[in-house]
Amino acid sequence: MSSTAPTVTREQAVALDAGSPLRGRRELFELPAGVVYLDGNSLGALPRSVAPRLREVVDREWGAGLISSWNTADWVGLSRRVGARIAPLVGARDCDVHVGDSTSVTLFKTFVAAARLRPGRRVIVLEPTTFPTDAYVAAGVSRAFDLELRWCDPADPAASLGDDVAVLALTHVDFRSGAMFDLPGLTRAAHDAGALAHWDLCHSTGAVPVELMAADADVAVGCTYKYLNGGPGSPAFAWVHPRHQPGWDQPVTGWFGHADPFGMAPTYAPVDGVARMASGTPPVLALSALDAALDVFDGVGIDVLREASLSLTDLFIDLVDARLGSVFEVITPRARSLRGSQVSLRHGSAYGVVQALVARGVVGDFRTPDVARFGFAPLYVTHADVYDAVEQLVAVVEGEEHLRAAYAVRHAVT
Amino acid sequence: MSSTAPTVTREQAVALDAGSPLRGRRELFELPAGVVYLDGNSLGALPRSVAPRLREVVDREWGAGLISSWNTADWVGLSRRVGARIAPLVGARDCDVHVGDSTSVTLFKTFVAAARLRPGRRVIVLEPTTFPTDAYVAAGVSRAFDLELRWCDPADPAASLGDDVAVLALTHVDFRSGAMFDLPGLTRAAHDAGALAHWDLCHSTGAVPVELMAADADVAVGCTYKYLNGGPGSPAFAWVHPRHQPGWDQPVTGWFGHADPFGMAPTYAPVDGVARMASGTPPVLALSALDAALDVFDGVGIDVLREASLSLTDLFIDLVDARLGSVFEVITPRARSLRGSQVSLRHGSAYGVVQALVARGVVGDFRTPDVARFGFAPLYVTHADVYDAVEQLVAVVEGEEHLRAAYAVRHAVT
Repeated sequence: MSSTAPTVTREQAVALDAGSPLRGRRELFELPAGVVYLDGNSLGALPRSVAPRLREVVDREWGAGLISSWNTADWVGLSRRVGARIAPLVGARDCDVHVGDSTSVTLFKTFVAAARLRPGRRVIVLEPTTFPTDAYVAAGVSRAFDLELRWCDPADPAASLGDDVAVLALTHVDFRSGAMFDLPGLTRAAHDAGALAHWDLCHSTGAVPVELMAADADVAVGCTYKYLNGGPGSPAFAWVHPRHQPGWDQPVTGWFGHADPFGMAPTYAPVDGVARMASGTPPVLALSALDAALDVFDGVGIDVLREASLSLTDLFIDLVDARLGSVFEVITPRARSLRGSQVSLRHGSAYGVVQALVARGVVGDFRTPDVARFGFAPLYVTHADVYDAVEQLVAVVEGEEHLRAAYAVRHAVT
Repeated sequence: MSSTAPTVTREQAVALDAGSPLRGRRELFELPAGVVYLDGNSLGALPRSVAPRLREVVDREWGAGLISSWNTADWVGLSRRVGARIAPLVGARDCDVHVGDSTSVTLFKTFVAAARLRPGRRVIVLEPTTFPTDAYVAAGVSRAFDLELRWCDPADPAASLGDDVAVLALTHVDFRSGAMFDLPGLTRAAHDAGALAHWDLCHSTGAVPVELMAADADVAVGCTYKYLNGGPGSPAFAWVHPRHQPGWDQPVTGWFGHADPFGMAPTYAPVDGVARMASGTPPVLALSALDAALDVFDGVGIDVLREASLSLTDLFIDLVDARLGSVFEVITPRARSLRGSQVSLRHGSAYGVVQALVARGVVGDFRTPDVARFGFAPLYVTHADVYDAVEQLVAVVEGEEHLRAAYAVRHAVT
């Protein structure tokens, strides 16, 4: 244990916040008093715009409008309208993003549809460090459709590409380490090999610039309950490059993806465009909450968010290095271009560290086996939060609270 | 046009309501003043318990509890808890019902998993009158998994069974006509042919007794936004007979169906039981709204609901026969045992009839090409509503309002 003096003072951190173009945005969120919330990469905080909107949807649209609200409140168009609001955050055209099912269900559809665009090839390349559901869903797809999964080296995914590869499926920002792939470069590599580039944007959308059209990517799926603050279990979005939309053939061909859902025709005929990603009736309450949550992005450019995010993660890394450099290994890349919006620390008692921090009002999370993970949602996390979080982290380590917390947990489990 | 005197007076209808064991239940719903709502078979009315519960989930669980609510509010167990509340309405064990995805996505999973239980057989039998999404999803499944769809005669589905049939997939109550299949009898017929009986309960659950275990059925899927009043686009439920659960192999193998979701293991291993129907993160807001909505069923037996429903549809049919018998053809079976909880009338200007009725505050809906459909949700529709609805229907026909309404619509469209 070798805690040393911080590299900046709390006053300097507060001054950084006062000078930020995002100052005041935090007031758009309901955050519990006394909590430093560094887990927005798992579940985003509650935007104040959500509760009033849900009240209106429940009382006025559902309660009073009843079935007529499918038209008068345009519930039919919700998936498209919400998609159009996400589009600028990922460098997409408004009309090319669809929102509806869970991330896992959406991945199932996009993996299958992407593979179908390369019928002569039967390999999907994944990284072994991908978020588990991506690997689980891809395994289900590969078994059902007689495809092969190939695990690439995360240090060089392109090395696994060959003329048998249909899809290179990567997560833009790694959920555990916070490392970020070169999306444009690896998209080019996939194309050079004749494969499609499929991007999981769960841990980047809303905090990291993503330029899907500029990068010429093929397919992307992203979560909306992390940096987009859509609420627990809010529906995922999917983007399909316009060149693939005419031939896009996703397997869950339900009535809301039909060209004329209420025509009740006996046979399926997909609607044009990305809307054919739809299967069932859209989840109106969840989509409405997400729609309201996206208000917090109004008038903020993604580059401003990115700069704020990097300033926060820079400061966190600097303070941890200076004060606890011998205790924690920062496993998140130090190069800005390789880093998402989180910082992950390796420690043998990482679980205890996270528990002890939570007891002190600093919420991060643990990822097995030895990672303490801290997310920095730039709309509501401040430099002062970062300073305070590291202060508490020092106190946990100095008091060996992480060892007692881990002990308590072991007893609770057995 | 030959309107005659009603067979009962309004006072007699009111007296039937006063004597009903369900009197007072209507007060559990927010219903707009001046509206007779006969479309609960499309979107159920708003239970008063929903808004306070959503406020609590948003403000306290999400806003204040943040990520900790996965444990402290048991969001992880929501799909199971809500399933357990639906179970008694369909004659299932509490632990055998899962709630999570849209009806269409759920049907995709159950069709595939059911067919996988009969690997030597490659036919799925469907009725041509099934709800469109069932047919569309089954078509997607058949194409992806090299199965064959066989369209049965709705008058005798069993005639299409043979030793090549893996699954007999029927909708219990027809969405257009309101006709109800003999679920136990057709389940036996499926088993006699070595096939599985797969039931779509969208138009029966909550209004019609369903005894899945007693009937020895195999799989069932149902909607929760119709008679269960879960709100627009609320998630569907799935039931899998316990004998099939150990080998149940649904294709969308996401992390929430894993035996240890937070263990983040690299390979998928399904959790025991029907919970392996889960794929992605559960939709917490929608599940919570549905959970609250189910309060209106507390203390009501399904047999009481059924008797009330039949009394309402009997009265509607009697009044339409007596007053408008020469104008409308009642296409819903008159035999109680063959009828769900709706009554459908055939008329060449059915669209105009429905529009003109809506203008008079009576909400039913139109199903192409010539059906006016009226649902009778027994928890909030009264005999007085039925009386009033037929009065308005008589007024529409006598004033030829349906012809003007249809004319107006044609002009609005062109």
